[in-house]
Amino acid sequence: MVKRTSKRILVVGGVAGGASCATRARRLCEACEIVLFDRGPHVSFANCGLPYRVGDVIESDAKLLVATPELFRERFNIDVCTETEVLRIDRPGRRIEVKDLRTGELRWEPYDALVLATGANPITPRLPGVDLPGIQVLRTIPDTRRLRDAVARTRHAVLVGAGLIGLELAENLVRRGLQVTLIEAADQVLPPLDPEMACYVRDTLLKHGVDLRLGETVDRFAATGDGGLSVQCASGAEVETGLVILGIGVRPETTLARGCGLELGALGGIRVDEHMRTGDPHIWAVGDVVEVRNRISGDWQLLPLAGPANRQGRVAGTDIINRLAGRDRHAPPPSLTFNGSLGTAVCEVFGLTAAVTGLSEKALRRQGTVDFERVYLHPGHHASYFPGAKPIHIKLLFEKPDGRILGAQAVGEADVARRIDVIATAMAMGATVYDLEELELCYAPQFGAAKDPVNVAGMIAANHLRGDLPLAAWSDLATTDALLLDVRSEAEYHLDHLEGALNIPLEQLRARLGELPGNRDIRLICGVGQRAYYATRILAQHGFRVQVLSGGLQTYRSRCDGYTAPSAGSGGRRINPP
Amino acid sequence: MVKRTSKRILVVGGVAGGASCATRARRLCEACEIVLFDRGPHVSFANCGLPYRVGDVIESDAKLLVATPELFRERFNIDVCTETEVLRIDRPGRRIEVKDLRTGELRWEPYDALVLATGANPITPRLPGVDLPGIQVLRTIPDTRRLRDAVARTRHAVLVGAGLIGLELAENLVRRGLQVTLIEAADQVLPPLDPEMACYVRDTLLKHGVDLRLGETVDRFAATGDGGLSVQCASGAEVETGLVILGIGVRPETTLARGCGLELGALGGIRVDEHMRTGDPHIWAVGDVVEVRNRISGDWQLLPLAGPANRQGRVAGTDIINRLAGRDRHAPPPSLTFNGSLGTAVCEVFGLTAAVTGLSEKALRRQGTVDFERVYLHPGHHASYFPGAKPIHIKLLFEKPDGRILGAQAVGEADVARRIDVIATAMAMGATVYDLEELELCYAPQFGAAKDPVNVAGMIAANHLRGDLPLAAWSDLATTDALLLDVRSEAEYHLDHLEGALNIPLEQLRARLGELPGNRDIRLICGVGQRAYYATRILAQHGFRVQVLSGGLQTYRSRCDGYTAPSAGSGGRRINPP
Repeated sequence: MVKRTSKRILVVGGVAGGASCATRARRLCEACEIVLFDRGPHVSFANCGLPYRVGDVIESDAKLLVATPELFRERFNIDVCTETEVLRIDRPGRRIEVKDLRTGELRWEPYDALVLATGANPITPRLPGVDLPGIQVLRTIPDTRRLRDAVARTRHAVLVGAGLIGLELAENLVRRGLQVTLIEAADQVLPPLDPEMACYVRDTLLKHGVDLRLGETVDRFAATGDGGLSVQCASGAEVETGLVILGIGVRPETTLARGCGLELGALGGIRVDEHMRTGDPHIWAVGDVVEVRNRISGDWQLLPLAGPANRQGRVAGTDIINRLAGRDRHAPPPSLTFNGSLGTAVCEVFGLTAAVTGLSEKALRRQGTVDFERVYLHPGHHASYFPGAKPIHIKLLFEKPDGRILGAQAVGEADVARRIDVIATAMAMGATVYDLEELELCYAPQFGAAKDPVNVAGMIAANHLRGDLPLAAWSDLATTDALLLDVRSEAEYHLDHLEGALNIPLEQLRARLGELPGNRDIRLICGVGQRAYYATRILAQHGFRVQVLSGGLQTYRSRCDGYTAPSAGSGGRRINPP
Repeated sequence: MVKRTSKRILVVGGVAGGASCATRARRLCEACEIVLFDRGPHVSFANCGLPYRVGDVIESDAKLLVATPELFRERFNIDVCTETEVLRIDRPGRRIEVKDLRTGELRWEPYDALVLATGANPITPRLPGVDLPGIQVLRTIPDTRRLRDAVARTRHAVLVGAGLIGLELAENLVRRGLQVTLIEAADQVLPPLDPEMACYVRDTLLKHGVDLRLGETVDRFAATGDGGLSVQCASGAEVETGLVILGIGVRPETTLARGCGLELGALGGIRVDEHMRTGDPHIWAVGDVVEVRNRISGDWQLLPLAGPANRQGRVAGTDIINRLAGRDRHAPPPSLTFNGSLGTAVCEVFGLTAAVTGLSEKALRRQGTVDFERVYLHPGHHASYFPGAKPIHIKLLFEKPDGRILGAQAVGEADVARRIDVIATAMAMGATVYDLEELELCYAPQFGAAKDPVNVAGMIAANHLRGDLPLAAWSDLATTDALLLDVRSEAEYHLDHLEGALNIPLEQLRARLGELPGNRDIRLICGVGQRAYYATRILAQHGFRVQVLSGGLQTYRSRCDGYTAPSAGSGGRRINPP
């Protein structure tokens, strides 16, 4: 029987984390009173769909509403107060003051458990003119409406910031027929990726006509005479446009938390434990407003992603009921906790998919990790003998010497998310590259290969750790005095090759060992790395000091061209002839 | 330096396992002599591509050749003897007798290590007329040529056997414009799946005009006057056709192994250890000719799949060189072994994908497992708010009470292999359903959902194990005296519902508790299982004895209709009105 109780659970913020928390709490406890507050007119809307609503891919605002207030009431017996702002938290009194934004009425609401799911706000840089009309952000359904109106009235837009939202918006604005200028301060798009992986996305943006300005910052915005805007950049460049959208990131909305003295982390998010409890035993926090532990590095991070927010809501909802209602446990399974995040993310731009999980090389270097290695590969997304195979560019990062997987990035036109999902799953289970070697994945000609790209990534990494595949760093390619040995065919070599490279095709290598110096390092290079590996095995056994440049010329091109910064270690050796 | 050695490695059979073994051995040892023998004209061809060559999807035989004898010689210094049959093994003398099929010449070849990669042969049933011209199998490139000739001369084909090859052939023959009759002795297609999952594939075959005869066996074949064939079935049915293709499975080709007294398993495959060693310290065996341990049940099984064969070849090649050449190990990583198989497999038929990993419910029952449970779900392959979401039908099997995953099956039009790959990866790492709950997978609107289908599968299973979601068996639905409570909307209920079911829409349930009997079991049912779960949580907390029928009416329909056998536990309760 339902134990009658007057316990009140108040949830501030009704999107992913807050809505998940409220409904989970209801499923575990019929007796509690649950109220959801949101400042905006909607709860439980599909934040991640907003760019596609701008692009008319999603055909109505209604589609974005995952659940309406009515559904919350009827299905879950949860009261929803939209357009209601929570002004402050009285922790000793266990109550919050709320304001009905429609009537202006103020009232106090008591709680037994309070959940802060206040999310994050778009960052607005303090630049001259940033408040001009026509400069917008995209975070809510009303934002989407404003943007759609603006899109209908202009032929050109400037996007500031080339992160996930910026890229999705770029695609959707082009879909709507706009010319797009995309300005990004970093020297690459998609910051979660390393630059030599992000370059594939950059090339796709350029191919689809996006005017991409990397390494560029905005100095000021100004109004033009004709009702437009002028975006003035640090380089001196000036872009005239009808619409500016700021997509430079979000910042946790911690006004309430700060107001009542809850502990914040160094990154500005609320600190919580694995049950999503704050330091106050009656207050939980979930979603974009909290800091989470990175599962690989252990570091705190901000991670405004819907998947983790939903799981956090489920964890908090469970913990609240366990605490408030002391619910009976039938079995002793592992308790539901949030154990940090890998940061798995995916983005599609003009048919190209980029996905990532775990740490990037940039992130590893930033935190001072040195005992790691990375391999590159460029396999087809399915067997090459079946028509239509598209390359997937993969970078796998792993710890030395034990082989624990630290991160992976993949970019390609097909089945990219699948490979990152597999690696993310392996990582969640603490896998090493040796585990990847052995995975038994779906194979039919149109779905993969007898050795799936993920298997091959594991094999390359394991070959390295077993000592069978010494790897050279790309970063000293310009300065090394090692012999560069290109083992592709003569025809391939004559098409293009690295400056100064010697060519001995793999098939001739055993017969031409005499041409190689025994007392000099040899760096082996081919198209994507496979033939160089074969050559390594031949030469190493004959006593030559060999190393492979992982990923071959395909990776070299992505490292050294265009906008990639010197810090990425491009090497800078020229490719001859062109 | 390469230690000069006269060690000879002979590999019998040059497709997946044999070719992988030979090339791996070469990469680890330049000094050994390696010779590959194959009875047929080709080595290293893409067996899995043959049905698509018949269907002209793969446009030439040359595309099927993954590597030619020339490539083996030039790139790997491996001698390839095609059209050379190995007649017998002289184990004491460590030599094999071979016959050049072109010249008839016999000779002995000595070995230090012998690898049997003799594969498997199609099973030909001993039926009257089975040797008539026009009755074929598909296993080699020459088979493909014969089939293509036959396809060009006929308008109708009979396929015997609805396994992976049979289904792929059905699609490809239809693609070539043929009428196809598919005869299968079992009451379902695709034996690795459970019948209520295979039914989705059956429906797709029927929709595309395949004349499917389940539960039917062939008695005899006869020639008709006009050069055609008559297939006479046990039911009395007779099918006239121009072409018969037998696809009822394969049998390990163990003639050589048996001839020299190597140990075979009960299933007729060669017994090997985790290094792919036979009982003879100089003989290894890999690929379709060996029995492998199922990683979940521990039972021996035959598993004629390319992925495991490739990995086995790699393991054997490594072990051979470790033994023969005593190669130095730079580091102490885990040694390369073959640790059994999950049986991950995938098949696409007319745009519908079916994939499986681990054990089916049939297999679990066959081996007498009782402490397991299964859940069904039917989520979209991506967020429902993004256009184009296709349902994926998922069945997850797991152990009680610990939640270890035992198997999974999925069928749908999009992203099916991805979900089975994720679950196969989790299973390889020993995961439980609690691990699936927490996986952090790629989410953007077109790629998944904040709670991915795999997360949801884990959540449903974990809800059950935590005691929050009691499950009823579908099998006693016809005989149970429990109240059937349908919690869909009235409109849905009136469209169709289970005979005798009471309807109280979820949204009205809290207000109508008085209509429910407190002393009678209640089985909750809805469309796919989600609303029934919500209803369970309400009713259980009010003391009602409730259970959910997992997967809802969607699963019920797939369990009870058409060809599904009574043994599958359909229940047999009628759906009203139609």
